[in-house]
Amino acid sequence: MEIMPGKLLSKINSPADLKKINKDELHKVCDELRQYIIDVVSVHGGHFAASLGVVELTVALHYIYNTPYDQLVWDVGHQAYGHKILTGRRDRFVTNRKYNGISGFPKRSESEYDTFGVGHSSTSISAALGMAMAAKYKGENRKSVAVIGDGSMTAGMAFEALNHAGVADSDLLVILNDNGIGIDPNVGALKEYLTDITTSPTYNKVRDEVWNLLGKLPAGKNLSREIASKLEAGMKGMLSKSSNLFEALKFRYFGPIDGHNITKLVDTLQDLKNIPGPKLLHIVTVKGKGYALAEKDQTKWHAPGLFDKVTGEIFKKKYDTPQPPKYQDVFGHTIIELAEANDKIMGVTPAMPSGSSLKFMMEKMPHRAFDVGICEQHAVTLSAGLATQGMKVFCNIYSSFMQRAYDQVVHDVAIQKLPVVFCLDRAGLVGDDGPTHHGCYDIAYFRCIPNMIISAPMNESELRNLMFTAQLDENKYPFVIRYPRGEGVMVDWKTSFQKIEIGKGRKLKDGEGLAILSLGHPGNFVQAALRELKTEGINPAHYDIRFVKPIDEDLLHEVFSRYNKVITVEDGTVVGGFGSAVLEFMAQHNYKATVKMLGIPDRIVEHGSPKELHKECAYDAQAIATAARLMVNDVVKVSSAIAG
Amino acid sequence: MEIMPGKLLSKINSPADLKKINKDELHKVCDELRQYIIDVVSVHGGHFAASLGVVELTVALHYIYNTPYDQLVWDVGHQAYGHKILTGRRDRFVTNRKYNGISGFPKRSESEYDTFGVGHSSTSISAALGMAMAAKYKGENRKSVAVIGDGSMTAGMAFEALNHAGVADSDLLVILNDNGIGIDPNVGALKEYLTDITTSPTYNKVRDEVWNLLGKLPAGKNLSREIASKLEAGMKGMLSKSSNLFEALKFRYFGPIDGHNITKLVDTLQDLKNIPGPKLLHIVTVKGKGYALAEKDQTKWHAPGLFDKVTGEIFKKKYDTPQPPKYQDVFGHTIIELAEANDKIMGVTPAMPSGSSLKFMMEKMPHRAFDVGICEQHAVTLSAGLATQGMKVFCNIYSSFMQRAYDQVVHDVAIQKLPVVFCLDRAGLVGDDGPTHHGCYDIAYFRCIPNMIISAPMNESELRNLMFTAQLDENKYPFVIRYPRGEGVMVDWKTSFQKIEIGKGRKLKDGEGLAILSLGHPGNFVQAALRELKTEGINPAHYDIRFVKPIDEDLLHEVFSRYNKVITVEDGTVVGGFGSAVLEFMAQHNYKATVKMLGIPDRIVEHGSPKELHKECAYDAQAIATAARLMVNDVVKVSSAIAG
Repeated sequence: MEIMPGKLLSKINSPADLKKINKDELHKVCDELRQYIIDVVSVHGGHFAASLGVVELTVALHYIYNTPYDQLVWDVGHQAYGHKILTGRRDRFVTNRKYNGISGFPKRSESEYDTFGVGHSSTSISAALGMAMAAKYKGENRKSVAVIGDGSMTAGMAFEALNHAGVADSDLLVILNDNGIGIDPNVGALKEYLTDITTSPTYNKVRDEVWNLLGKLPAGKNLSREIASKLEAGMKGMLSKSSNLFEALKFRYFGPIDGHNITKLVDTLQDLKNIPGPKLLHIVTVKGKGYALAEKDQTKWHAPGLFDKVTGEIFKKKYDTPQPPKYQDVFGHTIIELAEANDKIMGVTPAMPSGSSLKFMMEKMPHRAFDVGICEQHAVTLSAGLATQGMKVFCNIYSSFMQRAYDQVVHDVAIQKLPVVFCLDRAGLVGDDGPTHHGCYDIAYFRCIPNMIISAPMNESELRNLMFTAQLDENKYPFVIRYPRGEGVMVDWKTSFQKIEIGKGRKLKDGEGLAILSLGHPGNFVQAALRELKTEGINPAHYDIRFVKPIDEDLLHEVFSRYNKVITVEDGTVVGGFGSAVLEFMAQHNYKATVKMLGIPDRIVEHGSPKELHKECAYDAQAIATAARLMVNDVVKVSSAIAG
Repeated sequence: MEIMPGKLLSKINSPADLKKINKDELHKVCDELRQYIIDVVSVHGGHFAASLGVVELTVALHYIYNTPYDQLVWDVGHQAYGHKILTGRRDRFVTNRKYNGISGFPKRSESEYDTFGVGHSSTSISAALGMAMAAKYKGENRKSVAVIGDGSMTAGMAFEALNHAGVADSDLLVILNDNGIGIDPNVGALKEYLTDITTSPTYNKVRDEVWNLLGKLPAGKNLSREIASKLEAGMKGMLSKSSNLFEALKFRYFGPIDGHNITKLVDTLQDLKNIPGPKLLHIVTVKGKGYALAEKDQTKWHAPGLFDKVTGEIFKKKYDTPQPPKYQDVFGHTIIELAEANDKIMGVTPAMPSGSSLKFMMEKMPHRAFDVGICEQHAVTLSAGLATQGMKVFCNIYSSFMQRAYDQVVHDVAIQKLPVVFCLDRAGLVGDDGPTHHGCYDIAYFRCIPNMIISAPMNESELRNLMFTAQLDENKYPFVIRYPRGEGVMVDWKTSFQKIEIGKGRKLKDGEGLAILSLGHPGNFVQAALRELKTEGINPAHYDIRFVKPIDEDLLHEVFSRYNKVITVEDGTVVGGFGSAVLEFMAQHNYKATVKMLGIPDRIVEHGSPKELHKECAYDAQAIATAARLMVNDVVKVSSAIAG
């Protein structure tokens, strides 16, 4: 069934079309845009509530600014669906986040309106400042605007950018989209501060007066700037709260204003367009605006999956038999079991209580499990600080977000040999979210650091046992446990805890002529391949290496003394990853086997379902079987790792 | 000549001894401590001006707090010499930063007073908060104090920690040591803000009144907190500036006070000790305090080397013949030459204008070269933003500090294929600064990322040519150029620019039976080894691989078709580094040569001179020669890569 846009929206194929519409009618465009997002996302999936919250802002920005000449940077980007629809991608919007379809995030290669690719939070101010500085240097009257949520504002990177922008004398507008929530509710002192200034009646009264005076000024650039500046200073001097955080950082602060009042937004942006220098507009919005259920339960409706837009029923796949749990839930429930027995255990998540399932422990043991906000760097070093006092901290960070805290792992944890446990959820190819969220690099970027233990469970029971092992007093090292997004393979996953000897892998099966070594969940792909190969009379051995560091040298000696053909399988990059660890072992011990490494290739892998991507990257069961056949039949396939 | 401590200082072997001294005499301890630092550093070298600036603070902290039970965390740590001297390391202080001597930074394995190892900036608040949260959880009345400079406060990580600490309800004191300078003068909006509040007479007047009232309160914990809080609110409400940045983040703010008034510091800390919750004490100090020349030229005296303490003459090695320049200066002068010819070039440094030598360009082209403060994350994404507008940005970040911006390189530069040029100074083993500053991991952590070009010059001319190549329009990729701390090898280094074909190495010498492949500066160690081996009739080939990514496959095919014994040499970790890239190539193309990888081993390498460390890590000329002999004579040395 084709989804039809509303009457006005159907004629908007670019911001130029939007600009033809009378200001009084913009609210209708907003209604239609909101409805179109609801219509499409309910049927095709994707992020939902964030884009609903910025419908008015999106329309206002493209109405006032000369995009794409003016540079508009969306932070994180899952709120940019409206932006995509208004900038020539309405018809392709049904392919959003699908294999070969458009990306769920702004992406430079997709549209000239997408000035900066995003996905991770808090990059927008830095990027937009770079654009503003370039415009200044080149003498262009190009405007740069960053739209950033209050959640993203808690990451240190945003502060770094404000600190620089405040003195960089460039024409930059930061729009703080204050809705009090990221994926989960925002936390921290900044959030409380924003609530204070948003709800303070005296503050708002003064602000309104200043605002009114400002609106009456002539539009001439320098004149209005000077007068406005004096007026504001005079008014605000009366009131302590008005000398605010952003003004301390040399930004001119405007707002807070209602982010769902399209007329006010348009007028405000028109005024601000003529005020040079660094300025921040604080708008207050409601995540999920216009869809009642989403407004009420914003975390659930962040990315609800498919749903009936009328009843609000979210469609879940139904099964006749019990299904394996998500790995994240195995983590979430297991940490509670462990913490009940070991009072040194604490849990830390940077803004992913739902996504990591640490929320269960936060509910049950609020004094021992913490959401610290979007701040991976702090989360890691806080965990290190706790570890110095004997605490056993499980710091749960998605694989791709862990890139944000790389130095903290090296400098604060590994060099000091503090036994922090890092649970890396979403390791490997994550699927629809695409390149910014794929956890491709963690094996390689952690393997090169001394003192690290790096493990990956092949199933739920292994995850539980690795978690159990990591929290034992006898473990004296930083301990990484990486596991993928989504479901495992065990229906009866709640197995009793067993200690695993650190650095020891498992032989799952003897074989002939060829050994397959796998790390983590893809071991299950190997199992499937083995079943297929068996019917053909091909019978490789299978080893689950389990620890990529320290690697099981006894097991590898066994492998290389028995087999001269080896396949390695991992859901990480083949550059510097598990396969390379095996090659390093071989070089050290002068083994000369032929090795084929399967895993994520050395290029940017786009979005799609995990299944599609595993196939594309040639490490699903079929690809493993194919590689095994070629190896056994001495057809060595040669591939190249040149960049690009 | 033995350096004698003063009369009081000679009796202080621990903070317990310090506590026996009468408060009125503490200023004498300060004088003696300052003198001792001058006496030792002038003769034995090390960081200088930072420790002089916190002599009074150091004495006051150990006088008031019950260290090491109370947890004292020094940010960065090169100001912690006084701390080391007062905590049982006075006699060993002459071994500071020497091979097998004490570390130039606090280090947990060295003393129980060193609660948290440091070196990189801005970790102290996170670590101290972790300690405070653990104390709260365990019901201990342990205090946690973080001492952080205004320069370190600009890094986002510090903001992340404040944002969490403000609402974490833990007993944490942050001391902001405001001296307006890191290594180079601090920059950014925060610095200007701190100057504003420090120099505002009305603000200080009100603050003094609040302070006086506070001092008269009874010491009872809850009572004083409540009353002080009300008083402060009342007083401060009168004045806009007093509702300040830190209070916005839910910290109680005290100060600014004179950080060289020992009595005031002692009294203040005594008061603050009894006030629970998150609080920030702003002290104003002078870096280099008490040594006139250091006060006057603080950057020069940050770590001046050896000097005559009376005349202030800094001893430089004198040579009869011209010497090769430092790599950093080759960068610093070459970027100007390039920028004069290409107006798209810009330079960015996060707080290292002197250390990177970007200062030359900043002086000559202030609108095109920027010190953005301690904020590697922002520096990288700002560079990416500039690159979207066609600018050719040279972003110069020390190898170990680049760890701070890892995600930004992946997410904002590599995925988007923006041709930012990263110059990684201080790559490899840096020497005296030790493990936190060694640039061991960059080859491995960058090599796993798609789209990256990674190069290392073997000498000055190569550095210039790589820089020239990187800025050409035909280069469409992120381009890393890594080079070591210190001097190169060419006296006549200002060679004319020549384009290098990207991904192409050089054959420096044919040979027999063995090929040595080197990356970057250690190629010179190979050259020295070859001279030695020649006298013994051993004649290996030598290839300078130059690009570790994309690696020169033609050259490697040549190598492996001619030689079945190969040594790789790099000044990076042997886990996942250049040697592993060679092994991956071999696996892909089914070559079976015997390969010995020389480089930094998989353990934490401590401090010492580069020469001592290259020897210890077995990749200096002698070690290369030894490895070559063993290989040629078929004695394969086996080593293990197990963590720890």
